[in-house]
Amino acid sequence: MASFLTVTSATDPRLADYTRLRDVNLRRSLEAEHGLFLAEGEKVIRRAIAAGHPVRSLLMASRWTAPLADVLDSVDAPVYVADDATLEGVTGFPVHRGALASLERLPLPPLAAVLRDARRVLVLEDLVDHANVGSIFRCAAALGVDAIVLSPRCADPLYRRAVKVSMGAVFAIPYARMTNWHDDLGELRAAGFTLLALTPDQAATPMDKAAMGDRAALLLGSEGDGLTSHWLDEADERVCIPMSPGAMSAGVDSLNVTAAAAIACHALLRR
Amino acid sequence: MASFLTVTSATDPRLADYTRLRDVNLRRSLEAEHGLFLAEGEKVIRRAIAAGHPVRSLLMASRWTAPLADVLDSVDAPVYVADDATLEGVTGFPVHRGALASLERLPLPPLAAVLRDARRVLVLEDLVDHANVGSIFRCAAALGVDAIVLSPRCADPLYRRAVKVSMGAVFAIPYARMTNWHDDLGELRAAGFTLLALTPDQAATPMDKAAMGDRAALLLGSEGDGLTSHWLDEADERVCIPMSPGAMSAGVDSLNVTAAAAIACHALLRR
Ligand SMILES: C[S@@+](CC[C@H](N)C(=O)[O-])C[C@H]1O[C@@H](n2cnc3c(N)ncnc32)[C@H](O)[C@@H]1O
Ligand SMILES: C[S@@+](CC[C@H](N)C(=O)[O-])C[C@H]1O[C@@H](n2cnc3c(N)ncnc32)[C@H](O)[C@@H]1O
Repeated sequence: MASFLTVTSATDPRLADYTRLRDVNLRRSLEAEHGLFLAEGEKVIRRAIAAGHPVRSLLMASRWTAPLADVLDSVDAPVYVADDATLEGVTGFPVHRGALASLERLPLPPLAAVLRDARRVLVLEDLVDHANVGSIFRCAAALGVDAIVLSPRCADPLYRRAVKVSMGAVFAIPYARMTNWHDDLGELRAAGFTLLALTPDQAATPMDKAAMGDRAALLLGSEGDGLTSHWLDEADERVCIPMSPGAMSAGVDSLNVTAAAAIACHALLRR
Repeated sequence: MASFLTVTSATDPRLADYTRLRDVNLRRSLEAEHGLFLAEGEKVIRRAIAAGHPVRSLLMASRWTAPLADVLDSVDAPVYVADDATLEGVTGFPVHRGALASLERLPLPPLAAVLRDARRVLVLEDLVDHANVGSIFRCAAALGVDAIVLSPRCADPLYRRAVKVSMGAVFAIPYARMTNWHDDLGELRAAGFTLLALTPDQAATPMDKAAMGDRAALLLGSEGDGLTSHWLDEADERVCIPMSPGAMSAGVDSLNVTAAAAIACHALLRR
């Protein structure tokens, strides 16, 4: 069972895992160095622990110890209890959800393992926005995608904001990270996946007309530049979601990647 | 033509329009009081001005005066030029896009005016997240929605983050705000719209089977509670986007409202 410790100073070194949550660069290096990530809010904390992540510690306002009592009973880690001012002092913002957990990352499975039983997968190339990554995981879970593959530089699904936006779906959908951006699409093709490159280019094959085999992988590109030409070339087909003829004159040349993923996953699920 | 003024102090009162951009409550009251809103980044500034919003002032790093030269030539307002530290001091964060404009709001058209020539509209009930509102506008523009109707308490599309996420689509899609949450759906029905309430409830009619007349309005609910029972009851039909049977056990009981809007708009456009 957890041990409770009251903390009153925002600079208490025992709270180092929770510092400056809005400083993306600091968090990235801190989390990589210690192999940790943070879960925020009761629901997400429960899912992270249920997914088997060992708990390093928890930090919460005292009002959260009761709702989380069963969780705290079952973990063997310090629980730091602080008032809202101390919480805000450590994290750098008002923690509305009132409870945070620092958890250990687990080794990601190799690509082959997540592909083995999958029929429908998403492949994300170099997305930079954590909220987009999180909401794509949520869509994938809602719409029946079997697995997600990340390019080597794609943003981290276990970053706090991604975890939160995903509603915890990052703990439910199996995912792997490619080690080789240039060659690893070949592994998907070798496993029998049809590679469909999603592009706003309206000259591409409309989504609904794309030939999709028994196994299909949808490639989605980054917010700014979209898919690289290497991935566009590697794909079996370029497919687009038709946009309104008026979109361009409204200054909109593409969908947000989450919206494109949602429409594409919905189309996938129905086939 | 604009007049250039170098500012070196983050507390310069002439920069009051640009203070503390991350403080949502402060910004809400400041913007309401002065009838202003902010546009961020070259592209969005251009669209806002093209849409007829009078310019109160601009604030930018000196590197942005050249790319925006034609705009600055054409407006009659002060252009405050500041270094990055001053910009960050005023706004409270590093302004990567380097250029901001403070613009005047215009009176919104009445509901009847935006409905007059529309066939496909979205109706947003009490969404609180500005990014969701912005990305729904972007989807709507991309996928051919004619107009958007906001409930009286729905988040402001001209809030900086909404404008940015919309890629400027808030200046392209006509929208109106209801004055009466309880009764104004009646005005849509009287105008001949079939009201379809989007709900994650999987017992509702699947989206693709919903009867849609010549004019259709899709009602979308808030991130937390979804549509109110009053609006669900007022609708002609409750419709759902089918989710995977495994979604619930993955802890996902609904789609993000933007994802739901994307899928629904896509379905709308094809009919
Ligand atoms: C914001 S878009 C990138 C825009 C970029 N300028 C381009 O031309 O690809 C991000 C990703 O969303 C997907 N996407 C956006 N709009 C799409 C559409 N209409 N059809 C298919 N995919 C789309 C693509 O995978 C794209 O790489
Ligand atoms: C996050 S959901 C709200 C969830 C809320 N617990 C509920 O039961 O409505 C926000 C909005 O997105 C839309 N939405 C989400 N998932 C949907 C689905 N599977 N089918 C149709 N609409 C959906 C609905 O309009 C909903 O009000």
